[in-house]
Amino acid sequence: MYDVVIIGSGPAGLSASIYAKRAGLNAVTLEKSPMSGGQVLNTYEVDNYPGLPGINGFDLGMKFREHADKLGCEFKEAAVVGVRELKKVGAGGRQTGEMQAASITTIKEAAEAENRGFAVITEQEEIETKTVIAAMGATHAKLNIPGEEAFSGKGVSYCATCDGAFFRGGVTAVIGGGDVAVEDAIFLARGCEKVYLIHRRDELRAAAILQKEMMALPNVEILWDTVAREIEGEEKVQGLVVENVKTGKKERLTVDGVFVAVGIIPSSDALQDVADCDEKGYLTAGEDCVTGTPGIFAAGDVRRKKLRQIITAAADGANAVTSVLEYLA
Amino acid sequence: MYDVVIIGSGPAGLSASIYAKRAGLNAVTLEKSPMSGGQVLNTYEVDNYPGLPGINGFDLGMKFREHADKLGCEFKEAAVVGVRELKKVGAGGRQTGEMQAASITTIKEAAEAENRGFAVITEQEEIETKTVIAAMGATHAKLNIPGEEAFSGKGVSYCATCDGAFFRGGVTAVIGGGDVAVEDAIFLARGCEKVYLIHRRDELRAAAILQKEMMALPNVEILWDTVAREIEGEEKVQGLVVENVKTGKKERLTVDGVFVAVGIIPSSDALQDVADCDEKGYLTAGEDCVTGTPGIFAAGDVRRKKLRQIITAAADGANAVTSVLEYLA
Repeated sequence: MYDVVIIGSGPAGLSASIYAKRAGLNAVTLEKSPMSGGQVLNTYEVDNYPGLPGINGFDLGMKFREHADKLGCEFKEAAVVGVRELKKVGAGGRQTGEMQAASITTIKEAAEAENRGFAVITEQEEIETKTVIAAMGATHAKLNIPGEEAFSGKGVSYCATCDGAFFRGGVTAVIGGGDVAVEDAIFLARGCEKVYLIHRRDELRAAAILQKEMMALPNVEILWDTVAREIEGEEKVQGLVVENVKTGKKERLTVDGVFVAVGIIPSSDALQDVADCDEKGYLTAGEDCVTGTPGIFAAGDVRRKKLRQIITAAADGANAVTSVLEYLA
Repeated sequence: MYDVVIIGSGPAGLSASIYAKRAGLNAVTLEKSPMSGGQVLNTYEVDNYPGLPGINGFDLGMKFREHADKLGCEFKEAAVVGVRELKKVGAGGRQTGEMQAASITTIKEAAEAENRGFAVITEQEEIETKTVIAAMGATHAKLNIPGEEAFSGKGVSYCATCDGAFFRGGVTAVIGGGDVAVEDAIFLARGCEKVYLIHRRDELRAAAILQKEMMALPNVEILWDTVAREIEGEEKVQGLVVENVKTGKKERLTVDGVFVAVGIIPSSDALQDVADCDEKGYLTAGEDCVTGTPGIFAAGDVRRKKLRQIITAAADGANAVTSVLEYLA
């Protein structure tokens, strides 16, 4: 039985791995893909992780992983489908005979039964652990408009860094108004003939420095108060129908690619049976990463918090391990 | 008038500088010494800042500063002695004539007067700003035993990384039981003939990985349940009187150096007139770094928090700037 299973290997999970190893915990980090780093991998340039200015996201992910490897952290490639409390007799037939035979007659015994740990259920196996650090991160939100799913990977993308190079010399549209949308527009403008930024409001949420940088680019055109209605094409994306929400006027833009940057969705599904989420699906926990379920801790983008950044995710990893240590002690 | 004055240039202050600059704020970072980095500078090796394994503390401090410099952040060398709310008429004679003449007759005017900002008082000047990020960090706690002050710099040190090399081939004692004490003992054992670790309890608080590393060293001797009573010597440290708190037995160790690693004290003095501190002197603020005083934010080791690490201080810098942006908007 592990002391802690860390689910996810983005900045929060890798930071937790590093802290858990240094704390002498018997820990394993589960990652769903063969590459560590999480969303960071898809970021062209990271300029706000203090100490590593202007680093490529992929390189930063690798640096985090190399740090964990250097310390000898244990990793396993496994997609987690659920987490089950071991205390629940009959919940999955995995209780030990000793446990099933026990007649819990005292409050103390009942309390001990409450703390038997968890089974982390992956597609291949079940992994038993005393505690879980949920660091599954988040994924990109979708527009849910006609054509989006049909043309996904055929001109519709959620990652300009990953796919932007395919549209060199072409015309692209970015949907959104936050940091990621503006960063995507700046990135795409390097290679594209023209980039539209489509934003439903009349001002951007993105950092001022990013806005300024984007505004200075001659080949970026911002369409304010505008929403995307439909993505059109035959084999691949050829056009984007947009509508001005103030005038109601519709327009068809001729584009080769549509980059969707309208927010993120927490990847909290696997924990829903054992931990509380807020209305948006984020696991509810404070700075100490302690959830309402003893033994379950939430770190990084999957946690309800104000600011989702690499640096705050990495801090969560450290805080979560500290809380695990307190819980185990 | 600045948007934000950041007091302190350790990891929290430098991270805040980076985030403030990227957010387009008119910001200045005040540092009391000519070298950025804070306590990090005095750390021999930092192995838990994700992405930069095994980095020398001095180098890490420099990397943070170089990051800020690369973005064009403004710095000023200045020791801050206090912070004053500009709204307080007559508090220091620095109200403008306009302000003094104003007859505040409406609630709205009163509310506006409440938000006139702050004067950050340094030894040279007063700097006006809309908001303050207090990132002054913390300093080393003292033993307060005879000989400690007299021999400070003459064998008594609070920083093994800084001063350890002076004791090569000699015998030293480290007082404390946390990460820093054990790290200090490991560091000193590389050059010293013998190192005593003096700890008042029968177990260490330090991370297991550090304890294991130290225990493996043949020239480190741990004195459990033992406190330091007096530091003796003539020109410089020659002996350390210790007492076993369980047996009451006193003993005089022949040592050349005494390294004190018994904790830290928050450097919150300059803010005491304008922000609330807890009983230990830490500025009270949550993860968002918002203090009870609108416009004042606390980041890093000076803030009341659970885990004081470089990574959590740097995360605070990011969170504090986000809160500043919300406050200014």
